[in-house]
Amino acid sequence: MSNRYAYLGPEGTFTEAALRALRPDTPAAQFVPCNGVDMVFGAVRRGEVAGGVVPLENSVEGGVSATTSELVNGDPLLITAEITVPVEFTLFARPGTVLSDVKRVATHSHALAQCRGWLAANLPYAESYVVSSTAAAAQSVADPSSPYDAAICARIAGERYGLVPLAEGVGDRADAATRFIYLSRPGALPEPTGFDRTSLVAFLPYDHPGALAELLTQFAVRDVNLTRLESRPTGDGLGTYCFFMDAEGHVAEARVGEALMGLRRICRDVRFLGSYPRADAGTAAKRPGARVSTTDDDFHEAEQWLARIRAGQVD
Amino acid sequence: MSNRYAYLGPEGTFTEAALRALRPDTPAAQFVPCNGVDMVFGAVRRGEVAGGVVPLENSVEGGVSATTSELVNGDPLLITAEITVPVEFTLFARPGTVLSDVKRVATHSHALAQCRGWLAANLPYAESYVVSSTAAAAQSVADPSSPYDAAICARIAGERYGLVPLAEGVGDRADAATRFIYLSRPGALPEPTGFDRTSLVAFLPYDHPGALAELLTQFAVRDVNLTRLESRPTGDGLGTYCFFMDAEGHVAEARVGEALMGLRRICRDVRFLGSYPRADAGTAAKRPGARVSTTDDDFHEAEQWLARIRAGQVD
Amino acid sequence: MSNRYAYLGPEGTFTEAALRALRPDTPAAQFVPCNGVDMVFGAVRRGEVAGGVVPLENSVEGGVSATTSELVNGDPLLITAEITVPVEFTLFARPGTVLSDVKRVATHSHALAQCRGWLAANLPYAESYVVSSTAAAAQSVADPSSPYDAAICARIAGERYGLVPLAEGVGDRADAATRFIYLSRPGALPEPTGFDRTSLVAFLPYDHPGALAELLTQFAVRDVNLTRLESRPTGDGLGTYCFFMDAEGHVAEARVGEALMGLRRICRDVRFLGSYPRADAGTAAKRPGARVSTTDDDFHEAEQWLARIRAGQVD
Amino acid sequence: MSNRYAYLGPEGTFTEAALRALRPDTPAAQFVPCNGVDMVFGAVRRGEVAGGVVPLENSVEGGVSATTSELVNGDPLLITAEITVPVEFTLFARPGTVLSDVKRVATHSHALAQCRGWLAANLPYAESYVVSSTAAAAQSVADPSSPYDAAICARIAGERYGLVPLAEGVGDRADAATRFIYLSRPGALPEPTGFDRTSLVAFLPYDHPGALAELLTQFAVRDVNLTRLESRPTGDGLGTYCFFMDAEGHVAEARVGEALMGLRRICRDVRFLGSYPRADAGTAAKRPGARVSTTDDDFHEAEQWLARIRAGQVD
Repeated sequence: MSNRYAYLGPEGTFTEAALRALRPDTPAAQFVPCNGVDMVFGAVRRGEVAGGVVPLENSVEGGVSATTSELVNGDPLLITAEITVPVEFTLFARPGTVLSDVKRVATHSHALAQCRGWLAANLPYAESYVVSSTAAAAQSVADPSSPYDAAICARIAGERYGLVPLAEGVGDRADAATRFIYLSRPGALPEPTGFDRTSLVAFLPYDHPGALAELLTQFAVRDVNLTRLESRPTGDGLGTYCFFMDAEGHVAEARVGEALMGLRRICRDVRFLGSYPRADAGTAAKRPGARVSTTDDDFHEAEQWLARIRAGQVD
Repeated sequence: MSNRYAYLGPEGTFTEAALRALRPDTPAAQFVPCNGVDMVFGAVRRGEVAGGVVPLENSVEGGVSATTSELVNGDPLLITAEITVPVEFTLFARPGTVLSDVKRVATHSHALAQCRGWLAANLPYAESYVVSSTAAAAQSVADPSSPYDAAICARIAGERYGLVPLAEGVGDRADAATRFIYLSRPGALPEPTGFDRTSLVAFLPYDHPGALAELLTQFAVRDVNLTRLESRPTGDGLGTYCFFMDAEGHVAEARVGEALMGLRRICRDVRFLGSYPRADAGTAAKRPGARVSTTDDDFHEAEQWLARIRAGQVD
Repeated sequence: MSNRYAYLGPEGTFTEAALRALRPDTPAAQFVPCNGVDMVFGAVRRGEVAGGVVPLENSVEGGVSATTSELVNGDPLLITAEITVPVEFTLFARPGTVLSDVKRVATHSHALAQCRGWLAANLPYAESYVVSSTAAAAQSVADPSSPYDAAICARIAGERYGLVPLAEGVGDRADAATRFIYLSRPGALPEPTGFDRTSLVAFLPYDHPGALAELLTQFAVRDVNLTRLESRPTGDGLGTYCFFMDAEGHVAEARVGEALMGLRRICRDVRFLGSYPRADAGTAAKRPGARVSTTDDDFHEAEQWLARIRAGQVD
Repeated sequence: MSNRYAYLGPEGTFTEAALRALRPDTPAAQFVPCNGVDMVFGAVRRGEVAGGVVPLENSVEGGVSATTSELVNGDPLLITAEITVPVEFTLFARPGTVLSDVKRVATHSHALAQCRGWLAANLPYAESYVVSSTAAAAQSVADPSSPYDAAICARIAGERYGLVPLAEGVGDRADAATRFIYLSRPGALPEPTGFDRTSLVAFLPYDHPGALAELLTQFAVRDVNLTRLESRPTGDGLGTYCFFMDAEGHVAEARVGEALMGLRRICRDVRFLGSYPRADAGTAAKRPGARVSTTDDDFHEAEQWLARIRAGQVD
């Protein structure tokens, strides 16, 4: 199993592209498509695969909500890597088809929403059909008896099913992207790199005005920036929420560790989801004008000072 | 058009059920299914319908992400009502089918994820197939030449397509629910009822540790509870977020109005999405122990006091 | 009484110098020395004088504590002006005395504390005696039968009692200064000047961790800087405090007005002490990097926006 | 020197009473009166005495401001104990004097302010004279050639100088009290008792709206209550402040230690003044409704949890 990896299938999804980018140098690797985000988690949990890849944000294939649910519930897994993949839609057809032949286009509902402008401008008389995934659309079109003439899907899917591109970049938004995460069973965390991200879920003890602000203050007071925050129903009904958070930094850092201990003390529960290198380039946000003293050296210096004053050495 | 209403179709979705619950007494009403959340918004924006209903949270049909996108982008619409519908899955088949006949089950991917436990226990040898919606699954099964023996869908869908229920409550979680919103073109807001919700989107001016906490403080300092918070990529790429928020209260209330003005002053932009009666029973959360002085009377009293001291009447 | 002004005496105190600087162009004015800060307040309250001057901060004559007590208790008065006077100590003696004659020096205890360095260096063998004020020291030395050879006092006191300066600038700290306030009976406030200060006393509703931080947040959330904060026992025993605050800006400004209304709503009581031009040159502190949108124009724009969204005009 | 103790004199002050209450069982002890708060500090710093007592709050003898100045400046000393002494004023005269004989009353200016009501009611025709301390008033009255008939002072002073009480409880406020502190050279801190106080001075890095709120947040986020806060000019001129703070708890506690390390990181400087048993009875304030998880056990549990997640042990 150490060379087997699960991903959200079917073959040809953007998720497969993400997995191949994350594990480029594993020639003997087996990539196992799963029929749902929950099945990727299950395969990793049961140890059937070494790891798995699922979309987390801005997915075109759906699945974000499913990913968050699985991260929050069930046996814990660790996020040990992330990757951001540009979402580039291509219109694929069977060899021999030309654009003017296309009367019926199949794709996933999210992809359809992102390509409506192009379709209206370039295929105003074609009808659109929604199927279960962009890769399923490609698979269907590959069959000569398909009711569809063309599929909007990822390049990897069109090529997988022997289709030819009729038009590239048919998405209305050039910079669309999806963030994927790599899941591992609990074990050693990735080493800090200086530009990491820490993910976690916090369950508030009770609901009152300012409760979330108190929670965020645990980060702000240690100058830890949050890069993402999402409230999620806990499953105990709408209206009871937990908070899915991405913070800058690695839990091995003092400032992040102390912030997490602070959360731990004030929350009903905190689930740590992992610390891993950030996929985006750049540097951590700083609070303008603030004396930023939250390096490990700063924490170490403060600890030494505390030890001295606790011993009464104030001069 | 004043008796026409759009909803996320196809016919038989939970969204149709939500719309019928929101407009029960409109016998001559026409309910128009749309092939995507964006198409519901478009129909309302163009005035082709009087209003439209889309899922917002915990959707089983997908579409939450699409709804938030449309609320944030494009011409503004107002949320003027909300409703929460229990998500109850039923296994439907053609008349004459019995449970032991079922070898192939069709449904939407999200529904499948929520019914896996029941399927494993009751139909361990049946295969599952993912289609574009639960209603589409019902429609397909209704065709005697369908490759599927049964569909997992809403009651409304099974009945619509002349199917018979084989098993009810096949969802693994009994209390699943979806929150739907009713969209109107800009115009008079619903009157305050004393138990309302206000929705808005805030765009942070820049990203720094504590920026979100500052934003939440605008609410906390006026004792306005947030019932939902979700960060959303702004579309300028992953990593740049806006915040979709639901707050307790009506914008006509002084405390909510002042909080929104505070946001307006510190944010790059604020989009008001509506104030409308809450669908959940109950009362607003209070901060324990706090002197809660945020009624309109409290604000009025403070304004009168301010007028006095500005006039130098301090005794 | 309209040309009579009270001050903390006796004649020759720094307070008299402050009053003369605040009322330079009133030739027929009568300056009435009082034997205690409370007596200055009493004279203004009873209308025996048009106004009065007392020290507020860093007083050398004592009296800060007494001033704060009177501001907090009794019938309210308004602070309508302030002035900062450099504290310059001079060693005065009777005519004919030279420095080497000085064996016994009289002054107030606070002045003595501020001149010890100079005395040790220049009059190492002289003895120091504490009397009730620096002016009283001058008055005593003026009497040829005085037990003291010299007094440390303000220039105004030495000149008043016919003494001659033996040494100037005998204070150990060159930049010492005292802030004095001018008190009026309740009435029209001074006009805003663009560089004003607002003083007030806030009584917390109850004592809990974070109570004071909540109070300060009312200012911070509206970008109002505090220039001074002092907790004071309320008189109900040690451990129960009120907070004496100086904030930047004038109560006529929207941001200050809204902050005060916020305090009013969360506090047990708020006593407004006045808005008046600042004596120190310079400009208001800004929060670095923040979008500072707290001018009256910003508040007006936000109010107009709120009126629009309350009317449902969101486009 | 180990049995010598300095205090703010002269003999007969409330400070002497405080020292005797703090060191009741030291028969061979020598109590050394000093002519100023700064001289008490000097004697302790130079090792001429084992410790010293000065007033800190609500002093009747003056000296609070001087005490704070000395705590902030000069070589650091530690506060190792505190005591609160009721301020009970008595009218003392020479033996043989009766109340109706009293025409001239001497006392300190602060005492005079606190006894005006009694004097107006009981000695309406007597004149009041301000001298340098209540004890000096008693000393003067003891001299048969004194210009004064009676002194308002502490019982200890009247008895010391052989006077007899004419009236007790002549203060207008029955519950007046002064808090005194005991100063030691740096060394081992008093052991935590479960009801302690920690004193410190924080120097803000720069002045901006919200700076003080950030500082207080370091305490609030760890549920450490502040019992006193006072801004003090730093001596670099009016307008530049440091903050003198008393917090609940002992620096040996995890929550207090972490709060102080937080201050250390964001402040220009922090001077620790001591952790010592509180003189007031009672228990620490709790934030109502909050999950208070700030015992040392809570911190220890959070540290163990952090160690586990850092090792990737999330299940």
